Amino acid sequence: MNYKMVGRFISQILAVEAVFLIPPTLLALLERDLGALHAFLITLVVALVLSGCLGALCRGAKSGFYAIEGLFCVGLGWIVMGLVGCLPFCLSGQIPRFVDAFFEIVSGFTTTGASIVPEVEKLTRPILYWRSFSHWIGGMGVLVFLLAIVPAGSSGFTMHLMRAESPGPNVGKLVPKMRQTAKILYLLYVLLTVLNFLFLIAGRMPVFDAICTAFGTAGTGGFGVRNDSIAGYSPYLQNVCTVFMLLFGVNFSCYYLLLLRQFRDVFHDEELRLYFGFVIGSTMLIVWNLRGFYATLGETIRHAAFQVSSIITTTGFATTDFDLWPSFSKTILLCLMIVGACAGSTGGGIKVARVLLLFKSLRRNIRRTMKPNKVQVVRVNGSVVDEQIIDNTNSYLAAYVVITIVSLILISRDGFSTGTNVSAVFACFNNIGPGLEQVGPTCNFSQYGDLSKIVLIFDMLAGRLEIFPMLVLFSRGTWIRR
Amino acid sequence: MNYKMVGRFISQILAVEAVFLIPPTLLALLERDLGALHAFLITLVVALVLSGCLGALCRGAKSGFYAIEGLFCVGLGWIVMGLVGCLPFCLSGQIPRFVDAFFEIVSGFTTTGASIVPEVEKLTRPILYWRSFSHWIGGMGVLVFLLAIVPAGSSGFTMHLMRAESPGPNVGKLVPKMRQTAKILYLLYVLLTVLNFLFLIAGRMPVFDAICTAFGTAGTGGFGVRNDSIAGYSPYLQNVCTVFMLLFGVNFSCYYLLLLRQFRDVFHDEELRLYFGFVIGSTMLIVWNLRGFYATLGETIRHAAFQVSSIITTTGFATTDFDLWPSFSKTILLCLMIVGACAGSTGGGIKVARVLLLFKSLRRNIRRTMKPNKVQVVRVNGSVVDEQIIDNTNSYLAAYVVITIVSLILISRDGFSTGTNVSAVFACFNNIGPGLEQVGPTCNFSQYGDLSKIVLIFDMLAGRLEIFPMLVLFSRGTWIRR
Repeated sequence: MNYKMVGRFISQILAVEAVFLIPPTLLALLERDLGALHAFLITLVVALVLSGCLGALCRGAKSGFYAIEGLFCVGLGWIVMGLVGCLPFCLSGQIPRFVDAFFEIVSGFTTTGASIVPEVEKLTRPILYWRSFSHWIGGMGVLVFLLAIVPAGSSGFTMHLMRAESPGPNVGKLVPKMRQTAKILYLLYVLLTVLNFLFLIAGRMPVFDAICTAFGTAGTGGFGVRNDSIAGYSPYLQNVCTVFMLLFGVNFSCYYLLLLRQFRDVFHDEELRLYFGFVIGSTMLIVWNLRGFYATLGETIRHAAFQVSSIITTTGFATTDFDLWPSFSKTILLCLMIVGACAGSTGGGIKVARVLLLFKSLRRNIRRTMKPNKVQVVRVNGSVVDEQIIDNTNSYLAAYVVITIVSLILISRDGFSTGTNVSAVFACFNNIGPGLEQVGPTCNFSQYGDLSKIVLIFDMLAGRLEIFPMLVLFSRGTWIRR
Repeated sequence: MNYKMVGRFISQILAVEAVFLIPPTLLALLERDLGALHAFLITLVVALVLSGCLGALCRGAKSGFYAIEGLFCVGLGWIVMGLVGCLPFCLSGQIPRFVDAFFEIVSGFTTTGASIVPEVEKLTRPILYWRSFSHWIGGMGVLVFLLAIVPAGSSGFTMHLMRAESPGPNVGKLVPKMRQTAKILYLLYVLLTVLNFLFLIAGRMPVFDAICTAFGTAGTGGFGVRNDSIAGYSPYLQNVCTVFMLLFGVNFSCYYLLLLRQFRDVFHDEELRLYFGFVIGSTMLIVWNLRGFYATLGETIRHAAFQVSSIITTTGFATTDFDLWPSFSKTILLCLMIVGACAGSTGGGIKVARVLLLFKSLRRNIRRTMKPNKVQVVRVNGSVVDEQIIDNTNSYLAAYVVITIVSLILISRDGFSTGTNVSAVFACFNNIGPGLEQVGPTCNFSQYGDLSKIVLIFDMLAGRLEIFPMLVLFSRGTWIRR
């Protein structure tokens, strides 16, 4: 393990976090919120001092950076980011307990949106801003940002980092240089966020609400600034959210292709088709199941489409308490939780691309049983998929099932119902936010004990970083060698 | 598809079923139960006539029998067996509705033990006998029986059939000839069942109860002859059940090795170790969680060990209403439902051998990420596992997840709670029997609608036959070709 390189990298992450801490600090100054200002200033100093010390300690790192270092860095980096990022919550006294504050900020960075705050309207604006901003930071990934701005060392370094942080079964480079790719991704991300903000302003949403909602939508996070999430806003604003949640759940390389006018490729993209297929199909089934539940058909469609988009993109905003829906609709939502958004988007879950691969490799294996003498390959978008990727996808599913089961056993000690526990684990592991029953859209995670909260924090991180960085971080082999 | 061969095979299965129908017919005669006697006689005639007609129609079948025909035959054979086997229930009027009767007998043959009968004590003895006997028939497999007695054609025929019906990731031949293997397996099965019966008699269980309980234990089925399952019997009898359930959950090739005095191989078998590890670990955790729930520690251990054995071997007997246990214990049971018994046993579930393989291939893939230049293989019991088997195991898990999700959506239309639905699907798919909440040990499946019952019937068959025969039976390619 190249510890000096890891240290240098963590130092850079902390520097980036310090930069991200400036806007909420300024907001606290502007609002004359002394408690929050105090908290943000201390956090800023802590981040800068730690970054400086680590940077000085790890000067003169040798080159040599492999996949394992990439996974290790990403896992450790996100934990350090959370540990520093939760300080404003604690120090301002608005979320006094450390475990709760850590849960809240990890939920923010991982774009989960699961909250332990019973009434968000009691928090002050700078704190609300930092909460929502953390979604935006975590959505595209801190390392992608780092790659876009910092002149990195070897190309192996950037590639391994990007691989470890990016969602989906394989990372597509848009352009040959990884750094250029990172820049293009961030530019698209900023553009779409601004567009979302403008559409919300056009519907007369207050500016502060619009900024935070845009951050929450862009990162597919789900922290709101109101107790009733999005339910209190006008139907127009709800529909704007529905559309933008769906847009942020699309693979960003599709937008790049659109910019290059390769409409054909985008239109024939199998993942995109399946994603919209899931959205439309689920919405129709839920609308059918909910007939008579709301006053008009229009209202039913609006609520169904909003909740489906919110769950499949793993955002977690809500316009209605879907825990009151009939169990058929709830089960569909539970399944969408697992599927998640497209690979290469800001959403979580298993990812539509992986679901596609699992289906195709399953069909291939059945075909192989039927015609054992024929070579059978798996194709996506017309080209053959490398067996190694299929193998990794299968491993991913296995790891996914194992972590789900272990988490379920650990949190069941707190004595909630099976439905609550299952949906709590799914909601955190897939970075969605609200679950069902006692962790439903009108409730929160504060009732769980500290051990359960730590398990759920692990799940959120494992979900956002796609499991392997966390497994590497906590596997014996990583720490014993040397 | 070699349809004539398939037809001849189905004809043989029906003939075997007719043989199995003789004991309950005699019992009905002995008990002067005219309703049941009538029903069994008609069923016997139907089975014989159908078998004769099919046999005559499919005379002169060409050879040529491949894996796909094996899977197809097994899938179809089991459905036909169920359709004929449920006639006694309908015709005697004791389970008047056809879907219910079909559910009950499929639950019997697949050794699930999920019942739609609210009070089993209202059924007459011949019907109770047939219900429990179906567990015994299904436990080791009808085809294994067929192979043991019928002089089969080509060796490809027997091998493909056995592969398709036997549980576990790969079929071990005990001796070079498949037919000999089938005979040895059946002999061991009969011996263990008789031993179980004798131990029960020694504890003063009534003879009829002892026969039925031994059948239910041997097949890891779980149909009882009393409303309160095993709860009403003495602690000694409950402990006998605990031990024999565990014994029938062991891979039968281990017993063969014991007979050959290869104790070392048995002792070092990784699957066996993991299986007993799961049993002991889960029992200890549940005993710890249940402290204060029962009067004495001895009683706690007895109930915990019984329920753990009953669930991991997928038997489904109960001595207590475990739905009242704290949710930590319930979650452990839910996880054991998924794990299941050893490969090559009469139990269901994913199988311990597959869980072992999944863990090992997961660890291999993490190691491969760390050291990409080293060839990494998966070893079980010291020898390298074929990549094809790992691939199939991964596919199995994918198919398992997909079927679970689709079933869950379909049965959720009946409006039960998420916990009920999840545990109903698990209980049927893993051939366990009772689930939690409204399908818990004191309740039954009769409240579900017909569509849900059919879905659960499919799940039971898919669980017992390890998914692929059912997928082949219902896949488009099988029916379109030719």
